[in-house]
Amino acid sequence: MGQDFFSIKYFDKQFIYIDQTQLPLIEEYYTTDNYEQIAVAIEKLCIRGAPAIGISAAYAIALAFKNHNLLDNEYFENVSNRLASTRPTAVNLFWAIEQMKKVYYSLSKNDNVFDNLVNTAISIHNDDITKCNLIAKNGLPIFSNKCTVLTHCNTGKLATGGEGTALAVIKEAYKRNLVELVYVDETRPLLQGGRLTTYELKKEDIPFYMITDSMAAFVMKQKKVDLVIVGADRIAVNGDAANKVGSYNLAVICKYHNIPFYIAAPETTIDKNCKSENDIPIEERNKFEMNRIQNIKFTKSIYSVYNPSFDLIPHNLITGIITDKGLFNEPYNFNV
Amino acid sequence: MGQDFFSIKYFDKQFIYIDQTQLPLIEEYYTTDNYEQIAVAIEKLCIRGAPAIGISAAYAIALAFKNHNLLDNEYFENVSNRLASTRPTAVNLFWAIEQMKKVYYSLSKNDNVFDNLVNTAISIHNDDITKCNLIAKNGLPIFSNKCTVLTHCNTGKLATGGEGTALAVIKEAYKRNLVELVYVDETRPLLQGGRLTTYELKKEDIPFYMITDSMAAFVMKQKKVDLVIVGADRIAVNGDAANKVGSYNLAVICKYHNIPFYIAAPETTIDKNCKSENDIPIEERNKFEMNRIQNIKFTKSIYSVYNPSFDLIPHNLITGIITDKGLFNEPYNFNV
Repeated sequence: MGQDFFSIKYFDKQFIYIDQTQLPLIEEYYTTDNYEQIAVAIEKLCIRGAPAIGISAAYAIALAFKNHNLLDNEYFENVSNRLASTRPTAVNLFWAIEQMKKVYYSLSKNDNVFDNLVNTAISIHNDDITKCNLIAKNGLPIFSNKCTVLTHCNTGKLATGGEGTALAVIKEAYKRNLVELVYVDETRPLLQGGRLTTYELKKEDIPFYMITDSMAAFVMKQKKVDLVIVGADRIAVNGDAANKVGSYNLAVICKYHNIPFYIAAPETTIDKNCKSENDIPIEERNKFEMNRIQNIKFTKSIYSVYNPSFDLIPHNLITGIITDKGLFNEPYNFNV
Repeated sequence: MGQDFFSIKYFDKQFIYIDQTQLPLIEEYYTTDNYEQIAVAIEKLCIRGAPAIGISAAYAIALAFKNHNLLDNEYFENVSNRLASTRPTAVNLFWAIEQMKKVYYSLSKNDNVFDNLVNTAISIHNDDITKCNLIAKNGLPIFSNKCTVLTHCNTGKLATGGEGTALAVIKEAYKRNLVELVYVDETRPLLQGGRLTTYELKKEDIPFYMITDSMAAFVMKQKKVDLVIVGADRIAVNGDAANKVGSYNLAVICKYHNIPFYIAAPETTIDKNCKSENDIPIEERNKFEMNRIQNIKFTKSIYSVYNPSFDLIPHNLITGIITDKGLFNEPYNFNV
């Protein structure tokens, strides 16, 4: 049976997180009650994955009031804005901050600000655990017996507060004997597949092969790939989705090979303000992610790079979207 | 103007090569007359690129007779077999060895074995320089004014004895003001694009952006990519081709985006013994190429990987094949 581990945890008025930039070679946990440290951890991708970012930001805002336990609107806005500035694409982050804001502005003088904010963060976290379990169950109908699945990036325990999104679906299906093998895209530039998804699958004793992102099409051509599941960082109401760069490539090669391409994400990933992919901003990250691997430079820093962190998958390439609310197919209309 | 450099050279009865595994951060040349050192350099990819491998193997066989300057069939076969064992996919290697064999077995007692073999190797090398120039010229008709080109792996000076194949076409077109910008796939696992093609383009002052292999589809979706050109390690008589893994992925996403996909290679890359891709063997390389980058481990060695060094592009995805003999289109029939 698999070994247990966690990626983020609230315990004894402290926030504990594993540094995902060092995994799987170094498993190091940090404990803090400093919101700025959590903000930096999100920026530096020590904490990553859209749902995990939202939960961590909520805990960060709460912990900012641990030693400043009073209503102070300017302070609250400063802290919230700091957290909101960490990553531009993940809508869960803004959603979580919004929840904290609602609770904060509902408080009156006699309320315990810190307790109320912490309880809201815990509730967001628990909510995510439940959502992950629902996503895992709602995804089961896409599997026939003994599927070979391909996935990209990391969408498991490390990316969420619970079991994950796309990876939770795969793990649940494996438990029910519906998955035989997983192909894991290494997911350049930051190797979340090769470092984190492999780490999680090994902990769960699920058989896998790591491949480079460029091999997925060739694996589809010559080997059995029954379906592809990835997560999403933002979903427009028409079903267009933003996810880790390389996802659009996967959706295109799935179409060519007639392989179903699924997205799994909590319903909070759907941004009602985005009508289509045209409304989704794409974060361009530092060039040093591209010319280094785990901080080791392999090519010259003067060389120009293009480094979009995400790409956009139009809804017509998405076979189905699995959320905690169910399994949705074309035509997607998340507006109603 | 660009700075000059070379990848392989024969000078003063010595063979000189740059260690491509260390480029671009370290530019180190080695000089040797030891055929085993050249064989190891090919195996370890210090020398790489189908034409460069063939030329280097020819020099290696010749140099084996520098201090053993006599007809010795058993020795010749041992040396040839050693060189032939270095890389299984590149047909140029076997072609070059075959040329050396023909000359060797035509020699009689009074011939200077070393001189004859060296002259054959030099002639193979000069031949490649000429072929590269012809490929570059034959490729020009595929460009309209100010194209943006995307390429994969390295197919320039470092891969051949001359200016290159696919990259030679791009460089020649750039000189004639037909190329505006080059997107360079980094080409995992060994990063020949991110390390070597960038190195060559910088030396030539040709503007480029390095991208991860997984970004090519997204670049095609949102930016201008007018055409893709890659090399080939082996071409079947029906036009199916083997090239660096990731090329098949590129061919599929080109098809989807209606972007022309070209192959450039010397005619010797066509293997008349291969009717189709089914006859082309694919080299699977060491797992340590996958879990390391430039010898720095980023994930655990115990994790399973699949590491095909090449993939197969069916002829129906290839818009045209540029060789030293001309520009060919469907239906390909290289048998006649």
